[in-house]
Amino acid sequence: MFFTCEKNILQEAINIVQKAASSKTTYPILEGILIKAIDNKVYFTATDLDIGIETFIDANVIKPGSIVLNSKLFGEFIRMLPNDIVSLELLDNNFVKITCQKSEFMILGNNPEEFPKLPAINENSLYEISQDILRLMIKQTIFAIAQDETRPILTGVLFEVKDNVLSFVALDGYRLSLKKVELENASNINAVIPGKTLNEISKIIEPSEDKVRITFTPNHILFNLGNTKVISRLLDGEFVNYRQIIPQEHKLKVKVNRNLLLDSIERASLLAREGKTNLIKFNIGNDKMIITSDSQYGKVQEEVTAMLEGDSLKIAFNSKYFLDVLRIIDSEEIYLEFTTNVSPCVVRKVDSDDYIYLVLPVRLIEN
Amino acid sequence: MFFTCEKNILQEAINIVQKAASSKTTYPILEGILIKAIDNKVYFTATDLDIGIETFIDANVIKPGSIVLNSKLFGEFIRMLPNDIVSLELLDNNFVKITCQKSEFMILGNNPEEFPKLPAINENSLYEISQDILRLMIKQTIFAIAQDETRPILTGVLFEVKDNVLSFVALDGYRLSLKKVELENASNINAVIPGKTLNEISKIIEPSEDKVRITFTPNHILFNLGNTKVISRLLDGEFVNYRQIIPQEHKLKVKVNRNLLLDSIERASLLAREGKTNLIKFNIGNDKMIITSDSQYGKVQEEVTAMLEGDSLKIAFNSKYFLDVLRIIDSEEIYLEFTTNVSPCVVRKVDSDDYIYLVLPVRLIEN
Repeated sequence: MFFTCEKNILQEAINIVQKAASSKTTYPILEGILIKAIDNKVYFTATDLDIGIETFIDANVIKPGSIVLNSKLFGEFIRMLPNDIVSLELLDNNFVKITCQKSEFMILGNNPEEFPKLPAINENSLYEISQDILRLMIKQTIFAIAQDETRPILTGVLFEVKDNVLSFVALDGYRLSLKKVELENASNINAVIPGKTLNEISKIIEPSEDKVRITFTPNHILFNLGNTKVISRLLDGEFVNYRQIIPQEHKLKVKVNRNLLLDSIERASLLAREGKTNLIKFNIGNDKMIITSDSQYGKVQEEVTAMLEGDSLKIAFNSKYFLDVLRIIDSEEIYLEFTTNVSPCVVRKVDSDDYIYLVLPVRLIEN
Repeated sequence: MFFTCEKNILQEAINIVQKAASSKTTYPILEGILIKAIDNKVYFTATDLDIGIETFIDANVIKPGSIVLNSKLFGEFIRMLPNDIVSLELLDNNFVKITCQKSEFMILGNNPEEFPKLPAINENSLYEISQDILRLMIKQTIFAIAQDETRPILTGVLFEVKDNVLSFVALDGYRLSLKKVELENASNINAVIPGKTLNEISKIIEPSEDKVRITFTPNHILFNLGNTKVISRLLDGEFVNYRQIIPQEHKLKVKVNRNLLLDSIERASLLAREGKTNLIKFNIGNDKMIITSDSQYGKVQEEVTAMLEGDSLKIAFNSKYFLDVLRIIDSEEIYLEFTTNVSPCVVRKVDSDDYIYLVLPVRLIEN
């Protein structure tokens, strides 16, 4: 193997695949990047067996061949090189010589035969979605996945297509986040994508209207971004029937400015945090929300103007669940819908119906 | 106590004094800020008994008085308020009510009588130095202080005035950093300022030509920045006689581009770091420096063009000590002066003589 290419292009390819390389593993070849030079293209692959990323660049391939290089060392060395032509040459005994200007790096590689193969996926049945919409769908749902592994299926996000609507759903037992988008001529499907995979995908995709092409097999999902492919395991098991959880009616609807509510809950949660319970109380009535919190250190009272339809209500929440959603919603005003002080609050955007968030209240003895 | 002032002004005062407040202590009052309102000024003081900071702001004082508030809670709440007038009112039982727009925060304070007094310092004998020069002197020396406490005196920076020259000196047994500046009509002095104090000072001072006025007592130093005063303990004991350590002659002088050398050592140190020894070797001769490093993972060779006066030399160093100094020096070219491969290397700026850095080589068996 012997090829030359521009440092910047090489570095970008490494940055992309590096996200899938293991950092600490008992199987050291998984800390590596498989490099394969052929036909004036160089392919880079990394995998931790859960997720695999492959990308390619155009390069001047003088001699085809392949090798596995330690992702961290190789990546850091390339990153620190000046912006110029870099050459990679495979010598004897798996040694690779990397040169650029007056820098020369000799690094011991691994046998490419030992590198695990990514599953082959037939890209027949496809879903197409633009990169920026996929990014938004991930951002607006992924924060609500379960952080602990007691129910592994809840550490993923449901990818559901039904009647030409694609829904992303995440829930952790205390709150639920649902984002919808219309797709044309899409066949129905139900699959749960690991949260980690979606995190890595959202780092790779660009804020552009370029399409991502998505294919499923029974156990895997493939995201095809053109030069880059990401393959991930799907999570096993049945997702929660989330439709049953979303209330169809409410007794109180509140329209409120998102930023003012966010700032007020942040200040109130300062004490809630010190008290380690994150408990804040809403007292909603007379076209305002009074938000209070107290701990041994003091007490806060915040007042936010709101437009009310329905009965007044006193209800308590874990402030974290409200802060999480208020930080990622992008509309200026939101609706909060309540029924009783023990049933979930529904948060919606005022200007569209494609996003719903649900949060369970905290039961208080005095209520 | 009852006063009102602008949120931004209040926040800045808190930011300044907060640096001296203890975060975890068995003496909770040290986690607080003493607030004292009098004559349309409000004074803020915090101390961890090693360092004390006091500042004041102009405010509308309706009722004079004083209280101690928890620095973290008070600071965070003020930071999160909108930019508007804030009022602080001391109620019964040490409760303080803070209000701003529709936010109201009740916080339990502590008795101001229990707050330790900062030492009173008579500002007769003064050194004056501009804030930006003091900042540079700290930056160019403090990185060389000892990190461990086995010789406490080396965790500080020597402040020495001799023959109208102010020197800052730091050394940790492996390297030494010396920065000089001329002062007019300055009396001689020798004192060792704790590194922590200088770190906090350099966060408070501005990149401006405004003067800092510095006063010493046998045990304390006072930095007077106008509205803000910082008082710190000095370190006990005799500093190392650093003049004896600085070589007066050399056999090899190398002129080299700082950035190119920095980049090359960074790449070489990548492997040196993996090998956990940080060991890099210089082979200097024929108007170039060859920098090499190797570990079980591979080997790097870097070449940097240099102008030589004197004998060629092979010598080895801990790469960290070169990276530290190359990152903080601001000149385009530097001189390296060597004598033998077991005697210290002197690093100087080409364009001025006010800065000297010394680093001990690593003895190699093969040398």
